[in-house]
Parts: sequence; structure tokens; C-alpha cells
Amino acid sequence: MDWWWCWDTTSPYASWASSELNDSDLESRFRSGDVRALARAISMVERRDPSVRVLEESLRAQRRAPGVVGFTGAPGTGKSTLVDGVVALLRKKSSSVAVLATDPNSPFTGGAILGDRIRMQRHALDPKVFIRSMGARGHLGGLSLATREAIRLLGAFGFDEVILETVGVGQSELEVAAVAGTTVVVLTPNLGDGVQMIKAGILEIADIFVVNKADLDGHVRVMTELRSMLSLAPRGQIWKPPILATIAAKQEGIEELWAAVLAHRDHLESSGRARELAEQRLKDETGEVAAEIARNRVRRALDEEPALAERLLDEGTPYNTAEEILDRGRQI
Amino acid sequence: MDWWWCWDTTSPYASWASSELNDSDLESRFRSGDVRALARAISMVERRDPSVRVLEESLRAQRRAPGVVGFTGAPGTGKSTLVDGVVALLRKKSSSVAVLATDPNSPFTGGAILGDRIRMQRHALDPKVFIRSMGARGHLGGLSLATREAIRLLGAFGFDEVILETVGVGQSELEVAAVAGTTVVVLTPNLGDGVQMIKAGILEIADIFVVNKADLDGHVRVMTELRSMLSLAPRGQIWKPPILATIAAKQEGIEELWAAVLAHRDHLESSGRARELAEQRLKDETGEVAAEIARNRVRRALDEEPALAERLLDEGTPYNTAEEILDRGRQI
Repeated sequence: MDWWWCWDTTSPYASWASSELNDSDLESRFRSGDVRALARAISMVERRDPSVRVLEESLRAQRRAPGVVGFTGAPGTGKSTLVDGVVALLRKKSSSVAVLATDPNSPFTGGAILGDRIRMQRHALDPKVFIRSMGARGHLGGLSLATREAIRLLGAFGFDEVILETVGVGQSELEVAAVAGTTVVVLTPNLGDGVQMIKAGILEIADIFVVNKADLDGHVRVMTELRSMLSLAPRGQIWKPPILATIAAKQEGIEELWAAVLAHRDHLESSGRARELAEQRLKDETGEVAAEIARNRVRRALDEEPALAERLLDEGTPYNTAEEILDRGRQI
Repeated sequence: MDWWWCWDTTSPYASWASSELNDSDLESRFRSGDVRALARAISMVERRDPSVRVLEESLRAQRRAPGVVGFTGAPGTGKSTLVDGVVALLRKKSSSVAVLATDPNSPFTGGAILGDRIRMQRHALDPKVFIRSMGARGHLGGLSLATREAIRLLGAFGFDEVILETVGVGQSELEVAAVAGTTVVVLTPNLGDGVQMIKAGILEIADIFVVNKADLDGHVRVMTELRSMLSLAPRGQIWKPPILATIAAKQEGIEELWAAVLAHRDHLESSGRARELAEQRLKDETGEVAAEIARNRVRRALDEEPALAERLLDEGTPYNTAEEILDRGRQI
């Protein structure tokens, strides 16, 4: 299966050929640090192509868990600029960093790749920075499954830090918090943001609050309000989320923000919470993976067995039909 | 199992006893039109208690599909007042109507029953009106499964119309649109609502737009903007979502709104889309039911088989573990 090597790599067809890597090729290029192999593997993850798991399995020995920080907040709060600032800081510290911008899209339209990644172009030529949008195709929860797999691949590739940036509104924040080690919630002096977040249950998921655009009027008021809301939090909470002010556009407050991320990470490790979280999340992920497999088995059975589909439509019994399909176990 | 009949129904214990109905009792009371039996069955659905399916199965013959209309929109748009107006109109037309207020809550906190159902109290003594909040416990997508089952129960109980009202923000709108026959998106002259909706992919799910609070400044502008956004919609769309103005607090525009709902329903029927939708949704529901069963099987296996759980945590292989559990099929 070494047909690819028949091509002269200086020929104009070489780049086309390299996008058609076969699996063993994918692995060797991934191991050699070819970023296109990484990008291709993440595309496979994103479209839920199970063949990527051959690669994952063979990379298992060299997996290292990267630090994972999620940034979430309403559109217009300056999340992308803030993330851009954090990337610049990490590069000064010689850490390699991957940014996954997760875009839940509308499940009804499919949705497109983001335009605002353009802002990140100043890192475009830096091989230690990898920036990528990920969409959620198909079902609810698909985004967090794909994100978890992509993080494992990024760790195996050698990235030290992974930053998750949410783009949409709504459920995506919660999905990101369920994957990140530390979740940063970004607000602005515009109080409306805060109200929306409270309604969406965002307050509970914050490990760190950032009030960005702190040069605008009202930022003191927002910080005070936040502080008083947090004082109502349930007692017994060991980690008290700090509230930081930043002006991302001027790169102000970024160092303090990263220091807070590291402090939170230390807290998770020293309290034993990091291990607990990792275990719980691996179990949850296993459940979601099983859910995905089950959906696929149902889809296939209904497609391939007209009699089964007809009975479902006649009798209107989704529970019986689902059980019948799953009870068969593996179909050879 | 007729122990319940030992109680004297005039005794003060009777109402306690009736909340402890056994299954055969539940069915006979449900059939006799006891609203408490309906409420109990919906509670079982909500907490994903599989024993409710015995009842569903035995009611299958008398199932009638009620009309299902979803109302969605940002908090503060006046959805509840609008729904209240529609309920009043339907009662004038002698239709019975159930309102399910779906509250996705925060999956991190559990969340509480809504206070604003109080607004609905003017219908509290009307047996042809049933109002109920439903929360989403557990996983993403759980709310739409519970909603679909509840709608079947409401149909079997004899309700003509079911109104779904979303309470949260974000994903819940999409879940409601996936269940309702007709989705009404409620906006106000506050343009911010509109921008949020476009970002959340709400525009695509609307069958009818309502600009409520049409006595406020700016409503003409919002309607014009909406109209121009809709003119960009993909060609070939047969149904053109109408844009209506209402002042729900004064009961203005409600009749026109209901006429639009009926026109949309006619369109679905006459175009054959109603049948297509029903079939596709039954298949999707079967997939989601299978996903729920699969999650439960994984949870049980990891709880009951320490060796399996330990291997998962050691090796970090959720995909292998999920497959192994599902491949077993039914465990006796």
C-alpha cells in the first residue's frame, strides 16, 4: 500500500497525493510531526470516522494529557482577542499551544467554518501554534465527543496546552466546561452579558471570571455585582473563582489571567479533584460513545431492514424497536 | 394488587393513597380521565422511569396525535403571556389544551420548577386546560425524549392541542422545533433579541414569526429587518414564514396568530410534509431512545463490574469499553 511513494514529491501532484494518505502513512507522518497528518486526523474525528481509532490506539503509548483551558462568553466579549493574547504569552514561555474553536452551529443547517480565525493569522507561520475550528455535526453532544478525541490527538502530537474557545451561544458553554480542566468565563462591562449568563447557568461552570474591556465605563460595577453574586454560592466550595480585569486589545491582564489558570490547576492536583474529574469524565465519555454507537446501529437497522422500519411506523413504538435492535448485540 | 380499594375513599388517607397508585390502578384512572393519573404518568416520563411504558402500550389503541405548537424566544419577549392568550382563544373554540413549559435547566445544578406558571392560574380550575413544567434531567436530548412521550400521553388522555413553551435559552429551542409541528418564534422590538436568535440558528426553525409588544417603538423596523433577512432564505422553500404583530398583554393579534398556525398545519398536510416529518421523527426518536438505553447499560456495567471500570481508567479507552458493553446485547 505504498503507492504514495511512487509520486515524485516535487511534482505538482504531490500535495494532492498527500491529502490522500492511507492509514499507515497517516501514522508515520503524524509521528514525524507533520501538521497535515494531525489536521487530517482531526477531520476524521470531526466527521466521526471510526477508522481514526486505529491511529489513536497505536499512539496510546505516547499520549500525554495537555493542559486544557476553556474560554466561554457571549459574542462580542472579546474572547478571541483574549485567547490570542494568551497564545502569545504561552509562546513567550516556549509552550506549544493548540486552539480549538468549537462551533455548535445549527444542527439544522450544517454551518460553515469560521471567518474570525483570520484574527489568529499572526501565528500562522509558527509551527508550535495550531488553530482549528470544529463543528458539531449530527446529534447533541457530538461536539464534546469530537473535542475529547481531538484533545487526545493533540496531546499525542506533543502540544503542551489546548485552549477551547466557544463560538456559539447556549449549550456549547456547558459542553466545553465538561471537557476543560479550567473554564474561564468572559464578561464585559455590558451588564446584559451577565444577566444572560446567569440565565444560561454559566455562573456555575466558571473557575475564573474575566471582565474584559476593563477600560469601558461600568467595569467596577460589574466586578462588584459578580462578587456579591458569588458570595451567595453554596458554602463548602473550596475553590473561590477569582474575578480578573483585562483589556485584551492592549494585552493588559493576560499574565495575571494565566497565573490564575495555573493556580486553579495546582488546586485541582493538590486536592485530588483532578484525578476524580478525569475518572468521572472518562466514564461519562464511555456512556456518550455508547450512545453514539447505539444511534448508528438503529440508523443502519432501519435503513437495511424495511420490515423493521415499517413496523415502527405502523405501530409507533420507538422504545420496543430500540430495545430490539440493541438486544441483538454485535451484528457480524 | 387491589389493596388500594381497601381504603375508604372518603377517609383523609384517600388522597395520600391515590398518589401511591399501583400500575393497573394508574391505567384505569387514566382512562377515566383522572388528571392526577396523567400528572403521575408524566412525572414517570420525566424521571425516565421505564415502567410508564406499560401504560403507554395499553393506551396505544386510543392514541390520537394532538396538534403540537412550539413557542420559543428569548426571556422577556412575553412568550408566557402570548401562550396564555392562545389558551384562552382555544377554550373559546372548545378545544382542550395542554401546555408543557420545557425548562432545560442547568445540567450542573438540577434546577427548580418555574414560578411564572402562576400567570396561568386563571385556567387552574378548567379541566380542559393542563399546565405543566418539564425539566431535563441527565443528558442532552433527554428533554425531547420526555417531551415526545408526554405528548403521546396527552393525546391518549384526549387533549386536542399541546403547546410547548421553552423557558431556557440555547439548545432548548432547537429541541422544541424537533418535536413541534409548528414553531412560533417570538421577538420584541428590542433588536438585540433578533441578533441573538440569528446567532443561535433560531431563524431557520421558525414557521411563524411574532413580533410581540408591537405597541413599543421600533416594531416596524424589526418587522422590516426580519422581512429582508427572510428574503435571503434559500429558494425552493415552499412555506414562507409569515411575520405577525401582537400585543399579548392586550390580547391583540392572537386570532391572527392562531389562523397562521392552522394555515401552516394545512400546508404540512396538503404537501405530504406532515407524513414525512412524522416518519423521520419516529426514526430519530428511536435512535435517541437507543442512545439512552446504551448510556444506562454503560453506567450499570461500570458500577457493577469493578474490573471493567478499572481497565477503562488504566487504559483510557472509552471506545473499546463502550463497544464491548454494547456487543453483549441484552444482559439477563
